[in-house]
Amino acid sequence: MSQEVIGILFGDPFAVMNAIGLVAFALVGSSKAIREEFDVFGILIVGLAMAFAGGATRDLLVTRVPLALQSPLEIGLGLLGVALAIALSVVLSSPDTHPVTLVADAIGLAAFATTGAIVATEAGLSAFGVVAIATINAVGGGAVADILLDRAPFILFEDFYASCAVLGGSAYWLAGTVGAAESTAAVACAVVTVVTRLAAVTYGWHLPTVQNSGLLRD
Amino acid sequence: MSQEVIGILFGDPFAVMNAIGLVAFALVGSSKAIREEFDVFGILIVGLAMAFAGGATRDLLVTRVPLALQSPLEIGLGLLGVALAIALSVVLSSPDTHPVTLVADAIGLAAFATTGAIVATEAGLSAFGVVAIATINAVGGGAVADILLDRAPFILFEDFYASCAVLGGSAYWLAGTVGAAESTAAVACAVVTVVTRLAAVTYGWHLPTVQNSGLLRD
Amino acid sequence: MSQEVIGILFGDPFAVMNAIGLVAFALVGSSKAIREEFDVFGILIVGLAMAFAGGATRDLLVTRVPLALQSPLEIGLGLLGVALAIALSVVLSSPDTHPVTLVADAIGLAAFATTGAIVATEAGLSAFGVVAIATINAVGGGAVADILLDRAPFILFEDFYASCAVLGGSAYWLAGTVGAAESTAAVACAVVTVVTRLAAVTYGWHLPTVQNSGLLRD
Repeated sequence: MSQEVIGILFGDPFAVMNAIGLVAFALVGSSKAIREEFDVFGILIVGLAMAFAGGATRDLLVTRVPLALQSPLEIGLGLLGVALAIALSVVLSSPDTHPVTLVADAIGLAAFATTGAIVATEAGLSAFGVVAIATINAVGGGAVADILLDRAPFILFEDFYASCAVLGGSAYWLAGTVGAAESTAAVACAVVTVVTRLAAVTYGWHLPTVQNSGLLRD
Repeated sequence: MSQEVIGILFGDPFAVMNAIGLVAFALVGSSKAIREEFDVFGILIVGLAMAFAGGATRDLLVTRVPLALQSPLEIGLGLLGVALAIALSVVLSSPDTHPVTLVADAIGLAAFATTGAIVATEAGLSAFGVVAIATINAVGGGAVADILLDRAPFILFEDFYASCAVLGGSAYWLAGTVGAAESTAAVACAVVTVVTRLAAVTYGWHLPTVQNSGLLRD
Repeated sequence: MSQEVIGILFGDPFAVMNAIGLVAFALVGSSKAIREEFDVFGILIVGLAMAFAGGATRDLLVTRVPLALQSPLEIGLGLLGVALAIALSVVLSSPDTHPVTLVADAIGLAAFATTGAIVATEAGLSAFGVVAIATINAVGGGAVADILLDRAPFILFEDFYASCAVLGGSAYWLAGTVGAAESTAAVACAVVTVVTRLAAVTYGWHLPTVQNSGLLRD
């Protein structure tokens, strides 16, 4: 049994969150590609890109070879997410906007914000570095998927999306600063991210723009 | 005489495939920019970006400084491709869709799938890592060129394009697994990629989409 | 007092140019996002992306962890630029096309071409590598900002923009080759870049396209 499988079974925070994030984001990315009527190869690429792009960017920023290129388990988990998306597209009419997909997206966002915060802390980055890597790890996959789908990646930020990862990453850093264990900080990061994201979707939260803040001249 | 020139003359698989890919992709990228009426600097940038982006991404993923930034020969080969594109644009009316350019694109795709597979194998990556790096090396340049030209990079995948590099990279890995020499595996990769790509263009191959596979509900 | 602050006060060329570039580009990026009516988070992200993307790409290409993830001073300077953009948007009606912003953009371009040339020279790259890294450092931020704003990044090249960084990077390399000190080469790079850029904006310089060069058949 590989060390990664053992890590997932015995609750290593990075391994658990990484596995959850890979399946969830591959499912969401593939659902978007199915909606856009991409071919089988396109569905596979968008799903895997959404699952792996954030973590690969994180790994490059701390100058190490992306995990996805070294571990066969990573690709297996990504393919599982792609298969789930194809199965969902058979039973649901609009899988990419279905609550199942929205919840999977929030879970993936929270899981990857946590893996990013763990890796950045281990690499000895500054507080800003920890929050930045948590956010990049969390939203990088969705941004690359949107580019592949020829949409503006910035729609990510319009609906209180990346902000949730910023809050989660900050929670991780705060928990670590006050002396919490890695697993406690990981739970804090994941809970803050997923709760704020689901609340934002449920209640339609939006951040103010300079134009509607009353600051601009008429 | 530099080691790189010796490598090309004496048939080092990486050096030969790299030189072919650089000239071919610089030619294709510049032809696309000429068609879009870009200025001279734009033609140069799109040509060099198409030639170098895939290999630079490959080098970053295995955490080494991109070859193109260290070797003057690389830029010379890229400039040769740009010059050929400008020469072709004088004698042909639509160089970017001319058979010469389509064949050059297929040759560049095959050459860079091979360089990617060689570098990934030397870096000790998994089977997925070898196929992924071969594909990224092969299609990365075209994807970046399309982004610079403000097109959806995903058109790459719609016409059985990246799939050919996936097949070529798989052939390289298979050949290596059954004990073939590096040069034999390189030839297998290049031949599989270029033949499937030219067949796909000639016979108009397409991959099925989930929508037309009959899986989706009406 | 941190080493970076000392570097700025005592005139270390990299520290001075880096600080100028960060404030200038964060200001320009945020002004663009304000014009597009992005929310507060979006304004922050586009501003910081424009300030940090070029330098982060430079750092990745020479395989080191981006400075922005390690140094709290970097983020402070970026936030200063974002704050200046919001202040400007209150007093000016079209801050993103105002002369203040155009000059800030030219100054940022020159400052980052210089930091790129310094880092590439220290990394021992070829002449092409020095010019390429200077150009990528200078235009990378604007290109990423444009992608986030869903515009073609290539508009960067149409108005004699990247060309100025190419000239500046070449000036740095030439100055170093003839034996000039790092600070002299840095001043040469910054002056060439900013003067050619401001002249291009003032006089409406354009590079020729193949179509209007008379080379193409009618």
